[in-house]
Amino acid sequence: MSAFPRNTWYMAAWETEVEDGGMLARTLLDTPQLIYRRESGDGYVMLENRCPHKFAPLSRGKREGDTIACGYHGLKFNDKGACIHNPFAERPPPNARVRTTPIVARYGGLWFWPGDPALADEALIPDMAFLDDPTPIYRGKTQMNAHFELLTDNLLDLSHVEFIHQKTFQPTGGAFTGKYEAREQDGVVLSNWWMPAIEPPGWAKPMLPDGAKIDQWIEMEWRAPACMSLLVGIARAGTDRKEVIGTPFLNPHIITPETSRSSHYFYTCAPDEGAKQFTLDVFEGEDQPMIESIEQNMGGADFWSLKPVILNIDAASVLARRRLAKMREQETARPVEAAR
Amino acid sequence: MSAFPRNTWYMAAWETEVEDGGMLARTLLDTPQLIYRRESGDGYVMLENRCPHKFAPLSRGKREGDTIACGYHGLKFNDKGACIHNPFAERPPPNARVRTTPIVARYGGLWFWPGDPALADEALIPDMAFLDDPTPIYRGKTQMNAHFELLTDNLLDLSHVEFIHQKTFQPTGGAFTGKYEAREQDGVVLSNWWMPAIEPPGWAKPMLPDGAKIDQWIEMEWRAPACMSLLVGIARAGTDRKEVIGTPFLNPHIITPETSRSSHYFYTCAPDEGAKQFTLDVFEGEDQPMIESIEQNMGGADFWSLKPVILNIDAASVLARRRLAKMREQETARPVEAAR
Amino acid sequence: MSAFPRNTWYMAAWETEVEDGGMLARTLLDTPQLIYRRESGDGYVMLENRCPHKFAPLSRGKREGDTIACGYHGLKFNDKGACIHNPFAERPPPNARVRTTPIVARYGGLWFWPGDPALADEALIPDMAFLDDPTPIYRGKTQMNAHFELLTDNLLDLSHVEFIHQKTFQPTGGAFTGKYEAREQDGVVLSNWWMPAIEPPGWAKPMLPDGAKIDQWIEMEWRAPACMSLLVGIARAGTDRKEVIGTPFLNPHIITPETSRSSHYFYTCAPDEGAKQFTLDVFEGEDQPMIESIEQNMGGADFWSLKPVILNIDAASVLARRRLAKMREQETARPVEAAR
Repeated sequence: MSAFPRNTWYMAAWETEVEDGGMLARTLLDTPQLIYRRESGDGYVMLENRCPHKFAPLSRGKREGDTIACGYHGLKFNDKGACIHNPFAERPPPNARVRTTPIVARYGGLWFWPGDPALADEALIPDMAFLDDPTPIYRGKTQMNAHFELLTDNLLDLSHVEFIHQKTFQPTGGAFTGKYEAREQDGVVLSNWWMPAIEPPGWAKPMLPDGAKIDQWIEMEWRAPACMSLLVGIARAGTDRKEVIGTPFLNPHIITPETSRSSHYFYTCAPDEGAKQFTLDVFEGEDQPMIESIEQNMGGADFWSLKPVILNIDAASVLARRRLAKMREQETARPVEAAR
Repeated sequence: MSAFPRNTWYMAAWETEVEDGGMLARTLLDTPQLIYRRESGDGYVMLENRCPHKFAPLSRGKREGDTIACGYHGLKFNDKGACIHNPFAERPPPNARVRTTPIVARYGGLWFWPGDPALADEALIPDMAFLDDPTPIYRGKTQMNAHFELLTDNLLDLSHVEFIHQKTFQPTGGAFTGKYEAREQDGVVLSNWWMPAIEPPGWAKPMLPDGAKIDQWIEMEWRAPACMSLLVGIARAGTDRKEVIGTPFLNPHIITPETSRSSHYFYTCAPDEGAKQFTLDVFEGEDQPMIESIEQNMGGADFWSLKPVILNIDAASVLARRRLAKMREQETARPVEAAR
Repeated sequence: MSAFPRNTWYMAAWETEVEDGGMLARTLLDTPQLIYRRESGDGYVMLENRCPHKFAPLSRGKREGDTIACGYHGLKFNDKGACIHNPFAERPPPNARVRTTPIVARYGGLWFWPGDPALADEALIPDMAFLDDPTPIYRGKTQMNAHFELLTDNLLDLSHVEFIHQKTFQPTGGAFTGKYEAREQDGVVLSNWWMPAIEPPGWAKPMLPDGAKIDQWIEMEWRAPACMSLLVGIARAGTDRKEVIGTPFLNPHIITPETSRSSHYFYTCAPDEGAKQFTLDVFEGEDQPMIESIEQNMGGADFWSLKPVILNIDAASVLARRRLAKMREQETARPVEAAR
């Protein structure tokens, strides 16, 4: 049960992380991978970052057009992973292939399908269309030393804001009086808070007259494997979300396993330095120490084997965990590896 | 055989390490634990340092009276480990419990019983009554990266003073000419040296006329699992311990496993800076490098599996090792875990 | 198949690494060893660096003549590994023995036989007689965190010079146009390049008139387990190696496993600082990062289990790997351990 589901789209990187003409080396699902954009601009390539000859990282080599030349002995691989040149023979070795993984650019991110390529239907890429909004945003990435489902747990349960984000978000207890609802709908898990007639959180106060009460909604949508979008809105209390204060913001929180005990975390924020710093204060200053201490406290054990107590606020995270477990189960019954 | 005996009292900390109103987090026998003193002053509490909800360390939370509020979602646990508050529901989840461990203050230390609580008889706490002496002492603690029985071996065999403590204790060879006796008596292992008519060790010289010979006795008492007290006395040679020089000193050396390859070491010394420094020079400067290099040289293997050569000076450490082996054997026959 | 062949001579150190009257501690084939030269000058001693009493490293003790006194309790061991003194008893314990390993000085190196001592025939020491040349050389050693066969692969395939040693050796493509031949002959694997009528490599240019072409030969000889000698020569093109430029140089490349994932690398170079620095630039600056990244990329897997693509330039390294595999197979059939 600890394996990763494979027949699903994960995000590998933001497009902005891959320089034109360059290569990005990144470990994803325990596998070293190499990502680059075709010279024509026509899509991206994901090759296993390991030459099949002597297992050198291809990222130590050179990019030549859409071809990667291994830095150890000069074997060249094209964007299909085929070896097209051996400097020491007329013909490349026919069995020299680098494993490729389907990769697609969408919503500013690069999505890869680590499972059976025949099943890699782009229509299944998690819907993150709101990221196509032309307003400038900063696309950031951090890393946490914890299993990716611990990061998902953290995001599907935003009641924790009342506890670990006191300094940054300055919540005022809405999670204790508000209404929480979790449900699954066509494979999307919704984790929604409705917090009527509360004191505004600290970040909202400058937008409001003194003493004004608000209604706040916090709504997280999860799509397998770990793609989340967060909507936060406030309105004058009792206006049924009509007299909205400021602009409701919608943020991605996209998690991809690096290894079984570490994860990539993709996010966005406003492009100014203040917003970037605030975001790091939240993620790296508040979430990360808690999540990593949990990873350590679990000592590598499976989550369910430790018999966790389940609260009402865990409803969404349990739905997500169950859905992933089902995916893994189905893949175990019909192994992906065999399909490759 | 490598598991720890559990039906026995280990020392967790000095009382002075636990601040009034505070909490002490410490890994003991491979388990993260949290220790605090009841507000009333009526005893101490030891809770597993892991919330049963999401496995966050409770030490990242807040103490409120005798209750600990988890810092992640605010579940509150009382001093019996029962959950008494869930901020997101009227009633706490009935199955939410943190494991507690019997803990008792005695002799300035805190003693815990990791085995079957029904067997936790305070009368079985190792007798360290001499620690109740009102003379001010400094209660110190260090840590060594080695199995706790390697630290016990080192302490039950004080002939090693002639070799690794030349700089600090300046011994004069008494262990080579003296008489050594080891025996077990009602579960206490005695490891005694009698060194008659020897040159005084360096530390004793200032108390003696030039050229005076002395008789020295060095007596270590061991009680399971790893509680030792050391008596060192000197007298004018040939006076049958009657014309004592200075005051014989009696010191505790109490070892508790942190993990299977690291140990806590509790000791005392005179409260002045000179004495503290001298003690660190002995323990951290001389014992620790040797003991840790042995741990590394053993590569994690079981002591007996390496077929050690046994010398007469090992008599006490063998008695102690055998007694612990017997305890483990009995517990394996009737597992402690089942009792909890 | 991942065990080391044992019935063979490995190099432990250069003689120059062992100071007169001193001791050298070194981990070899996963075992801590201690090496010293007899006071008489009559040969060397290799003892396991672990006292059989409490497993202290003997290197923490003192050398007294040809005897090592353990630094923990003073047991003394002679050059046969026999305990000859116990400070706490009249007679040494008869069963106290430190394992010795046959060790022989030859060619300026110290060679040890970790297998069955009865088979340790000095005539089987790999022939490195060229090292007895009286011209002063610097005998160096480095260490790489990779399996020793990855270092062998690197050395038996010098085509990699065209790729990772561009900065240092400034090769001019001879490996692409030259003739490569590998063969095994009486247990010696030969890996030879003949590169006729090429531009001289950068290092050779100062010795040549402008625009002169050369013939170059690069010949590596391998002897089990990982002893290599490299001959590099250049001559005016078309002179059938007769009009040699400069002096062909012959270098040792001797690899010994430290652990299953790290290796000692013994080499020589001219004794001036420039030559030493150049050599480090080659080994530590160019080879090491590539070889260690391969070790990491293989994740501890067996080389063949990863189904490497084999090129013509790998012929020699495959011959060497096969020979080692055969040695291991024979030893598994008739275990060495049983013989000791």
